[in-house]
Amino acid sequence: MWKSRLFTPGPTPVPDEILLEMAKPLIHHRTPQFRKILAECFNGLKELFQTKEDVMILTSSGTGAMEAAISNLLSPGEKCLVVEGGKFGERFREIAVAYGAGVTTLPVEWGKSATPSEIEAALKKEPDIKVVFTTLCETSTGTHTDVKGIGEIIRHRPDTLLAVDGISSLGAVECRTDEWGVDVMISASQKAFMLPPGLAFISLSPKAWEKSAKTKTPRYYFDLSAYRKAAAKEDTPYTPALTLIIGLAGVLKMLKTEGIENVWKRHYLLAEATRQAVKALGLQLLAEHPSNAVTAVRAPEEIDAEALTKALRDSSGITFAGGQGKLKGKIFRIAHLGWVDQYEILQAIAALELQLLKMGYALQPGAGVGAAEKVFLE
Amino acid sequence: MWKSRLFTPGPTPVPDEILLEMAKPLIHHRTPQFRKILAECFNGLKELFQTKEDVMILTSSGTGAMEAAISNLLSPGEKCLVVEGGKFGERFREIAVAYGAGVTTLPVEWGKSATPSEIEAALKKEPDIKVVFTTLCETSTGTHTDVKGIGEIIRHRPDTLLAVDGISSLGAVECRTDEWGVDVMISASQKAFMLPPGLAFISLSPKAWEKSAKTKTPRYYFDLSAYRKAAAKEDTPYTPALTLIIGLAGVLKMLKTEGIENVWKRHYLLAEATRQAVKALGLQLLAEHPSNAVTAVRAPEEIDAEALTKALRDSSGITFAGGQGKLKGKIFRIAHLGWVDQYEILQAIAALELQLLKMGYALQPGAGVGAAEKVFLE
Repeated sequence: MWKSRLFTPGPTPVPDEILLEMAKPLIHHRTPQFRKILAECFNGLKELFQTKEDVMILTSSGTGAMEAAISNLLSPGEKCLVVEGGKFGERFREIAVAYGAGVTTLPVEWGKSATPSEIEAALKKEPDIKVVFTTLCETSTGTHTDVKGIGEIIRHRPDTLLAVDGISSLGAVECRTDEWGVDVMISASQKAFMLPPGLAFISLSPKAWEKSAKTKTPRYYFDLSAYRKAAAKEDTPYTPALTLIIGLAGVLKMLKTEGIENVWKRHYLLAEATRQAVKALGLQLLAEHPSNAVTAVRAPEEIDAEALTKALRDSSGITFAGGQGKLKGKIFRIAHLGWVDQYEILQAIAALELQLLKMGYALQPGAGVGAAEKVFLE
Repeated sequence: MWKSRLFTPGPTPVPDEILLEMAKPLIHHRTPQFRKILAECFNGLKELFQTKEDVMILTSSGTGAMEAAISNLLSPGEKCLVVEGGKFGERFREIAVAYGAGVTTLPVEWGKSATPSEIEAALKKEPDIKVVFTTLCETSTGTHTDVKGIGEIIRHRPDTLLAVDGISSLGAVECRTDEWGVDVMISASQKAFMLPPGLAFISLSPKAWEKSAKTKTPRYYFDLSAYRKAAAKEDTPYTPALTLIIGLAGVLKMLKTEGIENVWKRHYLLAEATRQAVKALGLQLLAEHPSNAVTAVRAPEEIDAEALTKALRDSSGITFAGGQGKLKGKIFRIAHLGWVDQYEILQAIAALELQLLKMGYALQPGAGVGAAEKVFLE
């Protein structure tokens, strides 16, 4: 008996009812039936993004939306600032370099996050920076960034835009695109959206749309103006991943029923319980400002994190993510993201205790679970 | 009672067993389980493409792979020749223009196809053309192109590549990528592959890989070298649409069991029966060289093709495609593509007869079905 139990920061578990919804016989995408579904998605996405602007649906990995942010907003040679404190900051840099933008990096120690004042200082030094790229949650380190504070710095500069990778946390943590002055917000289907991978989402502020009209970088598939034009007619410019969009309509309904603020609260509780549990086991968190989407935990000195996650996955199906890049073998990451409730966290913590005990790590059996229960009781 | 019965050139019906396979609980993509599935897909795609080269799997609409063909093979200012005899020829041109290539169009009347000698003449006039783009089946007109013959013209030119959009017909009609000297072959999941939309496929010849290494057009998400590098480790560079890839492994097994030559024969029979049936109803085909993937039929003068397809869809679920662009209202298109057998064609023709009768068109009830049966009997 082996059950797939994902605690990875993408893909995350998909509700059975949504899996079955997506398994229905296919319909055509240029029909009134599908347009209705698409309209529901566009509305639901606006609420999740907390924006009045269009949220466009791309058929691609999240990386496709990151590329769209760059190719639609930066002409060759124009400058951008990339906050780089993990693998996804790196990716923004790589894409910007590929597209010939002038890239200034704000290096951040992995596990820390950039502060609004660091951003302010960087912009003072190079006032001709056109776009600032940051993550809301740097998935590779489980680190939360104060996007609200950074928005305060950027929103009053007429020639600078703020683009945020919310791929692994939008829909899990508080995120107010319009209110915070985020010009480009990005997410993807396989995280808090509780869907399989294959869709990416992106919204642009009026200021960003203006800039995109003047941007000279070549683009076609990710030219957002085509998606906006199609969305106005409840359509997509190219044949979309329509079964995933049917699933999207379903999960957006579920999230609306729960209420977005309740969804954020649920994720806070799951994250806080996980943090207290691992601390009770004598383990340390990597992130100075941990995200409520995913908890990065330093493995004990004597245990290889890769061996730990592999053994746990193979014995229990409970799948944590390992470390990426320079953190490989040193940390493991527990995502509590999307279709996850308190009882799954208790199960995962218990399984982690058992696995650590099997590997010879000294702990008090039940200590982690007990600490999590206390959080849920409060 | 309303049943979805797709006879559209994408999406096409997905086998129930594949829909259910894709509805299984999600697994993570960086695991031995998923790598095994991916390896099966890479092998199966090579057979379907009839190539020894890597076939890369992109998470995107087919248009994404068309863009990849252009951004990986044409530097800004380099010349290409686009055969334009329908909507998908147009799309190749639009993408090439967006990427700053020099575009020469070979205009073809909608419903006709370019001949090898026309291509030869165009290349003689402009010998510095680097890539020739054509469709194997121009979906908007149901027209087959003699890719084999065109390959003969191009394969011996060291500085010219042949790129073929096989999106709507690869896996349905004979297509021998390596043998015919096709340098870039493109397809997508929602046609002969019997899957929902969301995946695109692309293979490059060694000659095309060489050219891509020298191409200076900016690209990242569609940079094929990243996919090739990942494929060597049975991996993908970005989180792929993994449920669709799980489905892909399933359909490739089904196609292998049937045998690729038998699959081509089945599609020939379905297409020929459809052609004979509509002719027996007094209707005309649009295409001079009709594709075995989709049959484009001229609507009777007095009947609006849009009204016909809409009424048929709403009453029976039988969904034909209408005309695109300048053919809107004038033709309808019956796809016999993917998960379709003889009995579905008989049903579709019967329903077409009934609908035409309801709309006042004079025909002998059963005449079309009878003509189709004769084809199947032979």
